[in-house]
Amino acid sequence: MKYTSRLIEEAVESFSALPSIGKKSAMRLVLYLLQQDTAKSVRLAKALTELKSSIKVCRSCHSFSDDETCEICADSRRNSRTVCVVESIRDVMAIEETQQYNGVYHILGGLISPLDGRGPDDLHIDSLVDRVSGGEVDELIMAISSSIEGETTIYYISRLLEHRDIRITVIARGVSFAGELEYADEFTLGRSILSRVPYAQNVHGL
Amino acid sequence: MKYTSRLIEEAVESFSALPSIGKKSAMRLVLYLLQQDTAKSVRLAKALTELKSSIKVCRSCHSFSDDETCEICADSRRNSRTVCVVESIRDVMAIEETQQYNGVYHILGGLISPLDGRGPDDLHIDSLVDRVSGGEVDELIMAISSSIEGETTIYYISRLLEHRDIRITVIARGVSFAGELEYADEFTLGRSILSRVPYAQNVHGL
Repeated sequence: MKYTSRLIEEAVESFSALPSIGKKSAMRLVLYLLQQDTAKSVRLAKALTELKSSIKVCRSCHSFSDDETCEICADSRRNSRTVCVVESIRDVMAIEETQQYNGVYHILGGLISPLDGRGPDDLHIDSLVDRVSGGEVDELIMAISSSIEGETTIYYISRLLEHRDIRITVIARGVSFAGELEYADEFTLGRSILSRVPYAQNVHGL
Repeated sequence: MKYTSRLIEEAVESFSALPSIGKKSAMRLVLYLLQQDTAKSVRLAKALTELKSSIKVCRSCHSFSDDETCEICADSRRNSRTVCVVESIRDVMAIEETQQYNGVYHILGGLISPLDGRGPDDLHIDSLVDRVSGGEVDELIMAISSSIEGETTIYYISRLLEHRDIRITVIARGVSFAGELEYADEFTLGRSILSRVPYAQNVHGL
C-alpha cells in the first residue's frame, strides 16, 4: 500500500499492529476517521492513553479495575464466599452477561500448559490458595474450558485443595465441549452456572 | 457486555464506534493493548491525534496530504499532464500499488448519485474543469467503477469537456464489472491502466 501522507501511513501502521486488523481494514478505519468529526478520534486517543496509564489490577480477583479493588469484589450485595475461577477477564464478562451469578471471581491469567512452558507458578494459583486458606471461601466454581489445558488446571487446583473444607464444582457442560467460554450464548452459559455439579461426580460421570 | 472497569468500557465503546468493529472485537483489542507494552497504545493515540489535527487536503488533486500540495502532485518526475480521475483516495492507493502509472490524480470525492442526493456540485468537478481550462492537461484517464453511478459520472464529465482539446480515456475493463476498484489484484488493475481505450470507442464497443 502506497500513501500520499505520512500521517495516514503512521495511523494505518498503528492500527494494523493490532490483532485481526490488516492494512486494508486499517486504511478503511483511518479514512473513516478522517471523514468524521475530530471528536471521534480524540475520544479514542484519550481512551487509549488513560487505559494504560490508569488501569489497575484488583488485588483480590486479579481483574482489571479502576481501583485497588474491582467493582465486583467491592460490591457488598454479592456473595463473596462463592468464587468462580476463570481463565481471563473475558470469561468474567461473559458470565456477568448471563445475570445468573452473584458470587465473586478469581482470574487465573491463563491455564497450565506444559507445551507452552506455562506451569502453575505462572498463574494466580497461590493467591487462590491464600483466599481459601483465609477461610473466606465456601465454594470454588471452576468455569474453565474443557480443553486438555483446562482439565489439567482444574485437576491441579482440585488436588491442591482436596483436604480443605470447601466445595469444588465445575460448570455443567451445557456448553459444547470444543467451545470457547466467551462465545457461548448467554442462555447456555447461564444454565451451565446454575446446574453446576460437584467435581468428583463430574469426573466419575464421564 | 458488562465491564469491571469504566476505563475499559470507554476504550471498548470508542473502538466499537468504528465501522466493522463490534463489541467483542473491541474488547479483544482493548485486552490485547492492556497486555502489551504501553508504547503500542501511546503510538496509536498519538497517530490518531496528529492525523486529525495536522492532515491537509492537496489543493490540486484533493488527496489527503501532509502539505498544501501532496507528494504525488509535487513530484516533478511525474507527468502532470496526464490526470487519472478517481472516486476516492483509496483508488489512488490501489493504482499507486500497481507501479504502472506515472501521471497525477484528481479525486472526485464521490460519484454522481441522484438517489443519494449527490449531484455534480457535490463533487470536485469544477476544479477538474479548471485544471483542464488552465491548459495543464493532455489526457484524463477515468479510473472509475463501472456502476451506474460511475458510468453516469464518466458520461457527465466527458460531455462537460467534449469540446476541449484533451483525450478522455477509461481504464480497460480487465477488472470484473461488478468489482470494486480497490479490491482488484495488482496485475489486473495495472493492465487496465496500460490498455486504456478512448472513451467514445469504449461506449460503441459495448
